[in-house]
Amino acid sequence: MPKFKLITDTLKVEEFWADTLFWLRKDFMKVNNVIIENLSNKVPLISQLANYIFAAGGKRIRPLITLATSKLCGYVGERHINMAAAIEFIHTATLLHDDVVDESRTRRGKKSANIVWGNKSSILVGDFLLSKAFKLMIKDGSHECLEVLSDTSVKIAQGEILQLNTEKNLNTTESVYLDIIEAKTGSLFSAASLVSGKISNVNESLENALRDYGNFLGITFQIIDDVLDYCSEDLKLGKNIGDDFKESKVSLPIILAYQRSNKKEKKFWEKVIIENSQKIEDFIEAKEILRNYNVVSDCYDKAKHFALIAKDSLGVFDDSKEKQRLINLVDIIVNRQN
Amino acid sequence: MPKFKLITDTLKVEEFWADTLFWLRKDFMKVNNVIIENLSNKVPLISQLANYIFAAGGKRIRPLITLATSKLCGYVGERHINMAAAIEFIHTATLLHDDVVDESRTRRGKKSANIVWGNKSSILVGDFLLSKAFKLMIKDGSHECLEVLSDTSVKIAQGEILQLNTEKNLNTTESVYLDIIEAKTGSLFSAASLVSGKISNVNESLENALRDYGNFLGITFQIIDDVLDYCSEDLKLGKNIGDDFKESKVSLPIILAYQRSNKKEKKFWEKVIIENSQKIEDFIEAKEILRNYNVVSDCYDKAKHFALIAKDSLGVFDDSKEKQRLINLVDIIVNRQN
Repeated sequence: MPKFKLITDTLKVEEFWADTLFWLRKDFMKVNNVIIENLSNKVPLISQLANYIFAAGGKRIRPLITLATSKLCGYVGERHINMAAAIEFIHTATLLHDDVVDESRTRRGKKSANIVWGNKSSILVGDFLLSKAFKLMIKDGSHECLEVLSDTSVKIAQGEILQLNTEKNLNTTESVYLDIIEAKTGSLFSAASLVSGKISNVNESLENALRDYGNFLGITFQIIDDVLDYCSEDLKLGKNIGDDFKESKVSLPIILAYQRSNKKEKKFWEKVIIENSQKIEDFIEAKEILRNYNVVSDCYDKAKHFALIAKDSLGVFDDSKEKQRLINLVDIIVNRQN
Repeated sequence: MPKFKLITDTLKVEEFWADTLFWLRKDFMKVNNVIIENLSNKVPLISQLANYIFAAGGKRIRPLITLATSKLCGYVGERHINMAAAIEFIHTATLLHDDVVDESRTRRGKKSANIVWGNKSSILVGDFLLSKAFKLMIKDGSHECLEVLSDTSVKIAQGEILQLNTEKNLNTTESVYLDIIEAKTGSLFSAASLVSGKISNVNESLENALRDYGNFLGITFQIIDDVLDYCSEDLKLGKNIGDDFKESKVSLPIILAYQRSNKKEKKFWEKVIIENSQKIEDFIEAKEILRNYNVVSDCYDKAKHFALIAKDSLGVFDDSKEKQRLINLVDIIVNRQN
């Protein structure tokens, strides 16, 4: 049995998650305090909108990675707290802009900020949060961490822009899809992990391991995110199931399904995705085609392929409880239902 | 005669402008090269959109301030080039987002980017440019300059958000207006000037002088910008005359006019600004009210008030050709027709 076989037992995975949250609880409280401090603002709209989006919660998976990898590196100090908060600020800024770009109506099970406060506020508060993220990092004073974060911020924007070309474009290839999710999700996960190495002054090979761990975990996360939109059984996901479909988003399930479809089915995809002409029963039809071509299961296999790379990349670290928890985190991501 | 009396002779001012551009021509070419280098991108949309907006020109007044104040400080080196480019990137990012927020249709006499490429592209390329600005500054390596720029970037976003509250709000006070333009324009002009002091290691009192020079020059610039929308005689301004009026933007001319209007005139402003119900002849009517209450002339006087502070703030610097040119720059800003 390979050392890093993926755990699929749901109860086991839930136990992992509870253990992770308990393990990091003190640091998480500190991160929350930094976030709250930095959101209090004399301009009421900023505090209101930013608190709304932060209060909605979300998994806080990116700051969690920074906190967890810091422990893996044996980091002693407080710098990882501001790093984690800055990473979450960058993420939230991109969420705000994404929702405007995608014309989304919901986010984390609540009305999205652009619906409540309008697009203008979302654009500008996004800019505010991105600037605040840099301010936090600059306060830390590490030139290397700043380089990591600014590179990432450029990459995310590039990824989002690249994604615009895939809108309603059924000829989007799997390889372009992978480039996009690596840029828009992998890069921030990677930065979240790498900064821990930077503040801990680890050697180059450990740095590379952290970079890869984050990157491949991010790619895994995004594939699962995209596939859950077609198969999540309940409404835990926060976004409504079928949102990507409604928005004609060409994500991995659609790319695979379209490539495998016969002529008649291709016509169906062209109608619902390119023309965005959808009847209520079309989502059921879409899921039926996905099932016939084994798309969801194949998406999971692809996610697991990247998950395994993430796990193995930590091989260069000595075995420890912390390392085991980061390996468990990969299983948590693969098995998440929301 | 006070030392810094404002020059109003148009020919004289044009001569100043030509002299300034000639003086800084070599540095300006270098700044342009840095901008071009940083816009070449494997994602075609980024190069296309960014080149479109940079090719449209504009006055490049912010990088000009960095180049000119560097010479005032006797700076020897190349760091001011990247600083100037970063400042222009931040400015361009805010322009792109502004045009989406204001639903503008033209910019610098051409269709605005949001009209040509859509709002989504403008939002994301704006994010890209802001991130690139930080990347450029981080490459420079100065912690102090980074602090200046990130503080500014936060302030600009705050100013823009504050401005949202003034939309169609005729009760906006002159003092709130001044707070907004200080945040959204003064702060970046101030940063453009202050970074020159930072890279030249000038003492604190010279730093304060540079900070104030930029700030008050920026406030002057914005007041003139807002008043030109109501009185520019030709189409040189790049934006169409009357754009602010059409967009119900509550800028200084409207604030003063509304405060001074009688009941009937107040009703007129409420119709055209709050309800945004405008007939073709309403702009003529608006300008007529402005004339009756001496609004344009008073706006100019207010601009000159700040212009004089900008000039006097340089008093702590020894007299020099460079200082005289920065003083001339204030006259150029006050007298600009576009």
